[in-house]
Amino acid sequence: MSIKVDNKDKSWVEVPDNSDFPIQNLPFGIFKTSNLSPRVGVAIGQHVLDLKSLFVLGYLKNLPFSIEDFDNIHLNDMMLKGKKNVSELRLRLYKLLKSDFPDLKNNEHHVSQVLNHMDEVEMMLPIKVGDYTDFYSSEQHAYNVGCLFRDPKNALMPNWKHIPVGYHGRASSIIVSGQPIHRPKGQKKGPNDELPTFGPSNLLDFELETVFYTFQGKALGDSISTEEADDYIFGMSLLNDWSARDIQGWEYVPLGPFLGKNFASCVSPWVVTMDALESFRIPGPVQEPKVLPYLTYTGEKHLDVNLDVFIKPENGEEDCVGQSNFKYMYWNMNQQLAHHSVNGCNINVGDAMGSGTISGPEYGQFGSMLETSWKGSRPFKMKDGTERKFILDNDTVIMRGYCEKDGLRIGFGEVSTKVLPAK
Amino acid sequence: MSIKVDNKDKSWVEVPDNSDFPIQNLPFGIFKTSNLSPRVGVAIGQHVLDLKSLFVLGYLKNLPFSIEDFDNIHLNDMMLKGKKNVSELRLRLYKLLKSDFPDLKNNEHHVSQVLNHMDEVEMMLPIKVGDYTDFYSSEQHAYNVGCLFRDPKNALMPNWKHIPVGYHGRASSIIVSGQPIHRPKGQKKGPNDELPTFGPSNLLDFELETVFYTFQGKALGDSISTEEADDYIFGMSLLNDWSARDIQGWEYVPLGPFLGKNFASCVSPWVVTMDALESFRIPGPVQEPKVLPYLTYTGEKHLDVNLDVFIKPENGEEDCVGQSNFKYMYWNMNQQLAHHSVNGCNINVGDAMGSGTISGPEYGQFGSMLETSWKGSRPFKMKDGTERKFILDNDTVIMRGYCEKDGLRIGFGEVSTKVLPAK
Repeated sequence: MSIKVDNKDKSWVEVPDNSDFPIQNLPFGIFKTSNLSPRVGVAIGQHVLDLKSLFVLGYLKNLPFSIEDFDNIHLNDMMLKGKKNVSELRLRLYKLLKSDFPDLKNNEHHVSQVLNHMDEVEMMLPIKVGDYTDFYSSEQHAYNVGCLFRDPKNALMPNWKHIPVGYHGRASSIIVSGQPIHRPKGQKKGPNDELPTFGPSNLLDFELETVFYTFQGKALGDSISTEEADDYIFGMSLLNDWSARDIQGWEYVPLGPFLGKNFASCVSPWVVTMDALESFRIPGPVQEPKVLPYLTYTGEKHLDVNLDVFIKPENGEEDCVGQSNFKYMYWNMNQQLAHHSVNGCNINVGDAMGSGTISGPEYGQFGSMLETSWKGSRPFKMKDGTERKFILDNDTVIMRGYCEKDGLRIGFGEVSTKVLPAK
Repeated sequence: MSIKVDNKDKSWVEVPDNSDFPIQNLPFGIFKTSNLSPRVGVAIGQHVLDLKSLFVLGYLKNLPFSIEDFDNIHLNDMMLKGKKNVSELRLRLYKLLKSDFPDLKNNEHHVSQVLNHMDEVEMMLPIKVGDYTDFYSSEQHAYNVGCLFRDPKNALMPNWKHIPVGYHGRASSIIVSGQPIHRPKGQKKGPNDELPTFGPSNLLDFELETVFYTFQGKALGDSISTEEADDYIFGMSLLNDWSARDIQGWEYVPLGPFLGKNFASCVSPWVVTMDALESFRIPGPVQEPKVLPYLTYTGEKHLDVNLDVFIKPENGEEDCVGQSNFKYMYWNMNQQLAHHSVNGCNINVGDAMGSGTISGPEYGQFGSMLETSWKGSRPFKMKDGTERKFILDNDTVIMRGYCEKDGLRIGFGEVSTKVLPAK
């Protein structure tokens, strides 16, 4: 029996209005509870569906998964089964959760075994990231940075509209929402300093990004085309790719960002599948000058995803400091993946690829304090009367993302990280 | 009974004159044969000692290792036992192989089970690399590159003598000696081209480097001092960190090298432990201007390691195109590791850290064709009458390294890679 997703379908599990997790979403993550070891879960309303228990109870029969795929501290083994099988798994869950499908719904004992309230679970890092790449694909962000550090007339580098510029990041320091970080220390040298100094970063900043995770790619030496790329992208999460602007400013010439970035990159715990995002595809910007043939693509490969970022001072209220959207990307994920592998670089299951900071064209739509405070020259006024040029100790930075159309909302949840003072 | 290494000791296993692998070396690697599954091995003369079989036969009792540490396709699990235990394991092997120690030597049946001739083994990638970092720590190389691309008067960037400059590389494309690579394709734009073009790299180059691998480090947020660094460095191998100069030249501003590097980084199969290299420690260069306190160090942290690089044309003879030495490093490994973690970046077991291209002060001592051919303006004349500006299709690039002092030679073996035409 073939199942089709209908945007009007409801689940028998209660899904509050405005929930990020209706039956049409079903994002994957790793959770544990005080009683349950880490395992694969899927979000539905305010609950987490336990895939290990579902498997044990026989609800995932005739799918090519084993218990180890779900009884696991990462999603990678499940993802190794590839796009087609993971899509089928998601459809099976859709069927089991659908309001008119009785099998699970009517077995109260089983329901109590497979559903956990979100208040009672701890979400963990969903993916064991092999290699982490960060792109730089929002034109407004690249333009703003170019204006701030160079010259508005030549804000974009000559290569920017020809190449989805990217660089390698650090996989070891990718952590999940909820885990605090310490303000990093490092070498800095201001424009008027004679010599560099060492100490806590004074210019700690968030970067509002998304990240996509890959299925297993091809062997070293082979490339993935923009058309094939859809088969290699599992799903997306939110990413706060922290930056210490002062450390980065002194270190990054000529080989790029290093200690200014690799102290932490924080991700939201739920991976929203590309299947769940299909309804929100939109055309991308006209790319002029024309890109080289290997970067051309057909179809709608951009996505309309609202992306909001908030600062919550200690004991204070959240303040929205930026409202951006994934649609502001110049380069889409298919182009990024095709570029990344065009030289034969091999992509493995669980590789993470960040979008780069995403900024919209207007003030209020920027994805970093660097841009919002215009390098500190235009402090942001918070509701509590304080100002922010960059992030202060004990601030919590929260990012949220969601798609919305014709009454359907597919959300990403949030990535929330508190900044503790330097150690 | 405590064992001490004596540089005059001999093994009962034959070690030819000028071998890289006397009893004082005992480097670790992963090997397999037509009969044996992949496992941990140690090089001695022209043989490989099988640690899985040694364990099964009871020779590794009273050490905190399990069969899984040796019956393994990577060294990482063994390395997770830490510096002290791996050092003790090496001393146990030293004792078993020493000419005057009878236990193994006199058991012909066991000897035939644990020794495999190098001709009959296939060496594999020794380490599952979590994160790969490449430094840029040879002053002459940084100076040469600065002269070639900027200005001899300002060849070194202002940060170069304050920071062991480094950047993140790609772990997935690290491969072992013997595996051929294809010439990478990519976007290039010469200084006189109006628009970028796509095609095989015309400026494919090697980079003569070493790499060190780490034991498990500290938690995210903690730092490793230059003094503590010794406890976190397992050993070293040779590294050919390939570069496509034309791809890199167009892409690298402002975020650093990406597709010009991540198509392949090749390592030698044997990891020479820091224990085996102790006798070859030497003082480093005077660092002026003075480095910040966290980069100061005491003791001799540099090493005298000869590093040679050869080009072997198809069906031709090897030609030495560079003779460098690890002693030409400005920044040592302790400083690199302390810098890498000073912002709290966490280091995991099996992280790989490349030295950056190592060049000596004279022509003939350069670690890349970029420098030897001075950006193609000074072709290298090969013995067979051909010339090389960069690497041609079907060339094999071979790097070898060894320490030598008072009649003792500790070698690294080689990393050898053939370049096939672009796919």
